[in-house]
Amino acid sequence: MPAPTTNVDLPLAAELAQQLRVDSIRSSTSAGSGHPTSSMSAADLLAVLVGRHLRYDWDDPANAANDHLIFSKGHASPLLYSVYKAVGVVSDEELMTGYRRFGSRLEGHPTPVLPWVDVATGSLGQGLPDAVGVALAGKYLDELPYRVWALCGDSEMAEGSIWEALDKASYYKLANLIAIVDVNRLGQRGPTELGWDLDTYAARAAAFGARVFAIDGHDLPAIDQALAEAGDLSGHQPSVILARTRKGRGFSEVEDREDWHGKPLPEHMAERAVVELGGERNLLVRGPRPEGTAKPGPAADGAEVKLPGYERGQKVATRKAYGDALAALGVRRDVVAMDGEVSNSTFADQFAKAYPERYFEMFIAEQQLIAAAVGVGVRGYRPFASTFAAFFTRAYDFIRMAAISRASICLVGSHAGVEIGADGPSQMALEDLAMLRAVHGSTVLYPSDATSAAALVLAMADQEGISYMRTTRGAYPVLYDAGETFPVGRSKVLRQSDADQVTLIGAGVTLHECLAAAGTLAEEGIDARVIDLYSVKPADAATLAAAAAATGGRLVVAEDHHPEGGLGAAVLDALTGGGRTDLAVAHLAVREMPGSGTTAELLAASGIDAAHIAAAARRLLEAD
Amino acid sequence: MPAPTTNVDLPLAAELAQQLRVDSIRSSTSAGSGHPTSSMSAADLLAVLVGRHLRYDWDDPANAANDHLIFSKGHASPLLYSVYKAVGVVSDEELMTGYRRFGSRLEGHPTPVLPWVDVATGSLGQGLPDAVGVALAGKYLDELPYRVWALCGDSEMAEGSIWEALDKASYYKLANLIAIVDVNRLGQRGPTELGWDLDTYAARAAAFGARVFAIDGHDLPAIDQALAEAGDLSGHQPSVILARTRKGRGFSEVEDREDWHGKPLPEHMAERAVVELGGERNLLVRGPRPEGTAKPGPAADGAEVKLPGYERGQKVATRKAYGDALAALGVRRDVVAMDGEVSNSTFADQFAKAYPERYFEMFIAEQQLIAAAVGVGVRGYRPFASTFAAFFTRAYDFIRMAAISRASICLVGSHAGVEIGADGPSQMALEDLAMLRAVHGSTVLYPSDATSAAALVLAMADQEGISYMRTTRGAYPVLYDAGETFPVGRSKVLRQSDADQVTLIGAGVTLHECLAAAGTLAEEGIDARVIDLYSVKPADAATLAAAAAATGGRLVVAEDHHPEGGLGAAVLDALTGGGRTDLAVAHLAVREMPGSGTTAELLAASGIDAAHIAAAARRLLEAD
Repeated sequence: MPAPTTNVDLPLAAELAQQLRVDSIRSSTSAGSGHPTSSMSAADLLAVLVGRHLRYDWDDPANAANDHLIFSKGHASPLLYSVYKAVGVVSDEELMTGYRRFGSRLEGHPTPVLPWVDVATGSLGQGLPDAVGVALAGKYLDELPYRVWALCGDSEMAEGSIWEALDKASYYKLANLIAIVDVNRLGQRGPTELGWDLDTYAARAAAFGARVFAIDGHDLPAIDQALAEAGDLSGHQPSVILARTRKGRGFSEVEDREDWHGKPLPEHMAERAVVELGGERNLLVRGPRPEGTAKPGPAADGAEVKLPGYERGQKVATRKAYGDALAALGVRRDVVAMDGEVSNSTFADQFAKAYPERYFEMFIAEQQLIAAAVGVGVRGYRPFASTFAAFFTRAYDFIRMAAISRASICLVGSHAGVEIGADGPSQMALEDLAMLRAVHGSTVLYPSDATSAAALVLAMADQEGISYMRTTRGAYPVLYDAGETFPVGRSKVLRQSDADQVTLIGAGVTLHECLAAAGTLAEEGIDARVIDLYSVKPADAATLAAAAAATGGRLVVAEDHHPEGGLGAAVLDALTGGGRTDLAVAHLAVREMPGSGTTAELLAASGIDAAHIAAAARRLLEAD
Repeated sequence: MPAPTTNVDLPLAAELAQQLRVDSIRSSTSAGSGHPTSSMSAADLLAVLVGRHLRYDWDDPANAANDHLIFSKGHASPLLYSVYKAVGVVSDEELMTGYRRFGSRLEGHPTPVLPWVDVATGSLGQGLPDAVGVALAGKYLDELPYRVWALCGDSEMAEGSIWEALDKASYYKLANLIAIVDVNRLGQRGPTELGWDLDTYAARAAAFGARVFAIDGHDLPAIDQALAEAGDLSGHQPSVILARTRKGRGFSEVEDREDWHGKPLPEHMAERAVVELGGERNLLVRGPRPEGTAKPGPAADGAEVKLPGYERGQKVATRKAYGDALAALGVRRDVVAMDGEVSNSTFADQFAKAYPERYFEMFIAEQQLIAAAVGVGVRGYRPFASTFAAFFTRAYDFIRMAAISRASICLVGSHAGVEIGADGPSQMALEDLAMLRAVHGSTVLYPSDATSAAALVLAMADQEGISYMRTTRGAYPVLYDAGETFPVGRSKVLRQSDADQVTLIGAGVTLHECLAAAGTLAEEGIDARVIDLYSVKPADAATLAAAAAATGGRLVVAEDHHPEGGLGAAVLDALTGGGRTDLAVAHLAVREMPGSGTTAELLAASGIDAAHIAAAARRLLEAD
């Protein structure tokens, strides 16, 4: 590789911008898809940023002193990858033959399969919230002077999550966060809501606490000055640079024209565009490097976690055990917690009191809650994010994208199911298991007692990917002795004999109902096996299969969840995944819309209490 | 019932406010749960609103000329139900014995089991977006002078969805929308982000296009004046009334104190509170009534819908068929469409062009997209809301709450699964079937060809509850003749014989792969039955069971979705729901994180193409 030019002056930046445009066109035309015009509008911004302001050691992306560059407008991937070519980390050949191709790391939208990409983007309105999380880590955890630059599109300013992000950025005084908004006035199907009304954008951003710079996004000196001022860390506000730009800038046939979103130029147009843009270039440039190097946030440092102990039979809510265990886990300096303004219900407040410097209150903004978790995870921390289980539905897109970001984050949702009682259905998570099971590579845990809950919190802290624990509002008897182990992917058989005729499977509140049902059945001379399926995903196929084989395939599964996608589905998936099965399944779940009531009333009305479980078992035996 | 006082002057409103406080305390104390302090802060606002401004015929809640009153802060249900007592539609006895009790309509958070409640609230940040939908209908569809009043909490101003709502309210110039924000400065676990900083709230609301009124929320003349001005329909802006209030107002032991969120007063405190508030009252009041009466929006008026016809074998994308069918459905005046700025991809633009007066562009704000659908549904319209299938995950909480609202809305998501190709995983819906199946009472459809897609669009328009259709990006051969019927809950057997040894089940793109696999297998002498499971929920248990019985229980299910909660789960649920089953299932689904590529490459890499389906079938036969 020839030596790159390291002092990119503005005339060179102008050339660089043209190169980025040309390469955005060439790569997308070669791929036959992509978003060249959305790249061309922001090329001047990126040329000045990367050439003169972004402090990044391209030879050492693992240097934790590097600035961060997040493309919130992920569809401008041709621009990002063209930047990578310009700094010499991706070859022109890879750009031209890899972009959007099968097996290539240059995916249609950026993902962290690339070492310079922190988070997956492409679902709009997420990159900036993620950047807030990274900036939180920079200011409060790492205490390092890196900056987090997020390139946003103007269309995504319509997403509420953008305003959650700016709200939190100003609340937490994140001067290290700079949003650059590429206001090219054109969305996918036509003009954006606000067009080039920079005044309205500016008023909104200022009202949400940002320093605002409104500039012509093709005026290089203006860009340079705004980036310099915005990148200054001495203040207490995030910055928003509003750059008025023209989509497709630089090629007269498409510039500022509708109907060119997400369309590669046909080859003949691409040729004319390259000519109009001054031809192909192969500039190799580098911007400033960070001062010195830094290591990423503290690894799990081997601190011994002393889990809380509970007496068998003692009544303890699993949500309380979560708080106890999380506080215990705090001896690990990589563990960070955050909550959506309900920490006194989820018991995350126990961690907040013990380790206030590693706790972030996210208020009622669940999308930003998840994004903050992803962001601090980028910096090597292990986030635990909690709220009512029902309200994780607010952030499903963020959870899905976190999986694509290869994030390892721990989510804990309290107040699940009809068990919560009087508050009614808006507060009852009845879809959360389905939602989290369907996330790629996820782990879904649903403990029934405090001992297992605490042990599983510890397990989550080292689990890869998206981990979710569902906790329960009410206090139920502790079932296991302290020290019992609960491997992810296993289960516990709480009751069994050689004479078992039916298997009862539950988790959370329904496990206690299964145990009660087994007691009733035993009095009638019916032996029932009882399985605590605390690991809903992965589920313990071997134990389930053995139980099915031992009990004539007769299974009762009871869950405090809608019938689809939860515990019952997990059991069926596990049992049918390994060959031919002969099953007689009674699946008890919440099939009607619940209202208010006591826990006992609602469990009974939903048909998931001990009496219904016992009745279902009897029916299975009668049917055979 | 004695005659109510119909001219509520301010002195009487003050008494009414005290009654609302007293009854909020009494009802929640009697229930042993609830949010009295969150009710007390807003009692003055509601007394003046209901007594003097809300135009509502309490004897005729079906009068479509009535104003709407939506409690976005649904946890203030004691206040709402106390209002119902004050206007004489709920008795004191019902309030005291029903609130939060099992089987009662006075649920912990309001739901439309009450005739005066439009939408379920309790997940914060949703009532105002729903109100925007109702106001859209009022201004553009009904063209009636009703107003939509939404009572918001200050904590929920942290939800991005609130800003999506105000953005759309100003974009659509909804002068008929009035948000009243009860700024009591205390959230659940402590102070809110902004406390009593009304200036910042005001700057934000103004920047988002609202007329702003900042008042003392306990100053009755100030409230009265603000409500009068805000309720004036002559302008072009929504109104936001910022009312500085004190949580627990009126009872010195709790007023403006922390740690009293969501807690009923113990009986002895409740007694003291009632004394301090001047004792129990039984005022019966009525505010103004609307001028005249109006009927709700047009019912399905029997207009004959002429569905598009397609030639068998012609290649048509199901998303295109959606656009065709939706445009055809437009002859029904109750049908309304909206989209999240991708109407040229979902083909909702065909409706937009044909019926611009019944189309609402919601830009990239999926939460508001769903809320707008719910809101126009409140007014009797039948909304179709579309975006990329992946991006409905952004609005899962809204979809879940729509079910609790008993809304009938039609959702259509395009660009599902790895089939989309080069754009990569951020754009691939791989969780949508799981997400939508888990919604209470939902219908989930996944057509494989244009004929069935068009027919199912028509079916959706009369389906109760939440209906979802997944469409496909690419064009595939039409499989069915025009006029073929596709009842919800049924399926099509596309290939069968008495010699069938295995059943192949697909939907969408995988059905075409199943057909190809069956062709391959037939050449090898293996007869395979092929089922088009276009109705994923409810699934056709009878046809599936018959196929399983006829083919030795051997089933291959192939789906372009993660393994959890989708087509495979639907098949297993259907087959195990009816008694003992003997099954050998091969479940092909997207089990690894996809990248970019062509459709064929990605289907193959995910193991869901014809070759993998045929191989799975062979393995099932070999295993037996």
